[in-house]
Amino acid sequence: MDNLISSKENVHIKYAKKVMTSSKFRNQENCFLIEGIRLCEDALNNSVVLKETFYTKKCFEKSKNILEKIISKSQKSFMVSESLMNIISDTDAPQGIVCICEKNKLNVNFEDKLKNEDKIVLLENVQNPSNLGTIFRTCDALKIENVIILGNGCDVYNPKVLRGSMGAVFRLNIFEFVNSLETVNKLKNFGFKIYATTPQNDAKFVSDMDFSEKSGIVLGNEGNGLTQELIDICDEKIKIPMNSNAESLNVSVACGILIWEMMKKELLNER
Amino acid sequence: MDNLISSKENVHIKYAKKVMTSSKFRNQENCFLIEGIRLCEDALNNSVVLKETFYTKKCFEKSKNILEKIISKSQKSFMVSESLMNIISDTDAPQGIVCICEKNKLNVNFEDKLKNEDKIVLLENVQNPSNLGTIFRTCDALKIENVIILGNGCDVYNPKVLRGSMGAVFRLNIFEFVNSLETVNKLKNFGFKIYATTPQNDAKFVSDMDFSEKSGIVLGNEGNGLTQELIDICDEKIKIPMNSNAESLNVSVACGILIWEMMKKELLNER
Repeated sequence: MDNLISSKENVHIKYAKKVMTSSKFRNQENCFLIEGIRLCEDALNNSVVLKETFYTKKCFEKSKNILEKIISKSQKSFMVSESLMNIISDTDAPQGIVCICEKNKLNVNFEDKLKNEDKIVLLENVQNPSNLGTIFRTCDALKIENVIILGNGCDVYNPKVLRGSMGAVFRLNIFEFVNSLETVNKLKNFGFKIYATTPQNDAKFVSDMDFSEKSGIVLGNEGNGLTQELIDICDEKIKIPMNSNAESLNVSVACGILIWEMMKKELLNER
Repeated sequence: MDNLISSKENVHIKYAKKVMTSSKFRNQENCFLIEGIRLCEDALNNSVVLKETFYTKKCFEKSKNILEKIISKSQKSFMVSESLMNIISDTDAPQGIVCICEKNKLNVNFEDKLKNEDKIVLLENVQNPSNLGTIFRTCDALKIENVIILGNGCDVYNPKVLRGSMGAVFRLNIFEFVNSLETVNKLKNFGFKIYATTPQNDAKFVSDMDFSEKSGIVLGNEGNGLTQELIDICDEKIKIPMNSNAESLNVSVACGILIWEMMKKELLNER
């Protein structure tokens, strides 16, 4: 039988809470926290290392088969009360399972993976975790395999990102580089044509692009868009034509339309 | 000078809080609550009736010009402390202005507006307020003017919907009908071809449709999709081709891609 934790002062509870709330602590400890049966199962199926699993009795009884599988693969596991689960959960109605997982090593095989890749998505300073998670989910659904995070945006391992991604984070190759310009220049050297998305007047309509070459689309921050320095070194400026009275599209919706346009041929060829 | 409210027991504060939190109360009182300078200004510019405005001193001093305009158009206005603002705000960091607005009469001129309309979007049982707000924002940006809410989804006047829509709710014609089948049949009688979005195997790819006729796209609930009864009476089943290993797209992203495909010709013709 597993260890039962009943005090909120317990060292594992305190640790899990800190993993959930602090991106700095996640970096330092090289781990992240996921919750919900579906996401924990996804992690397991994608060979993510499960360090500590916390679950409630109710959740165990409700989903015994999958819980047993997750627990058997976890380095440590603890049964906790509902009230303790609330402390280490990021949701209003916790499903009753939380896992601390080990991060993969960052930026491994970047050159190898990118040299052989055809289509990529780049994000500069995207701040909102729901947007970031939704963009990962879109990439996964529309056959993008490599996503490159530039600048200083939202932490990829924020619990809201992980949840919004519906497990896509475990399937995608995600690379992170603070230096946007250096990274884009490197990708151009790998043969990528880089498309900056911007509402500027001289940007071309995305539907006029043919994306037959190795292509990467870059999207920017929710409020400010891409930095001008980054736009300046891209090969092409593109935009989605829209109603001039409306403000703009949400970044994850814009990203969906742009990826769709870039990937359409490939997605349709497979029918 | 305006009335100053300093007690959280004040009847206007209690009223505003109830408008914010209860869709039932919003229906009963025929009003809704918005917050933030941008959204309140949008309401004003779209001739929404402002019944009560609450603002902090700090916000007034920071944005005097626009606050004075909003206050002068409000039937009542109150200066409140920061702590009272927190009570009637739905956000973590309130900007310091909240307005109670009068709802428009529901479903007015439905037949007139729809008979002369060419492209519409329908949503059945969409639950998540962020998704609904984002979809409204997308409709507005991509030149959809009429949105029809079917079934029992999220309240259009939920504060999160209003915020996520970035003011699109004030510019769109939004109709609500509980009876999905009756409404879709009526639209078919108006000459609309109705496209049900569903991942079912026999659904056609959206990119194979030409949308040259009067067209309406229907999207369903986040978890369950469209009801089968509704799918059965639609003219065509459509889907977005995607990676078979991935779960699905977020409904607001899917909606973005579908609307883009339906509206592309029109959006591009205007260049």
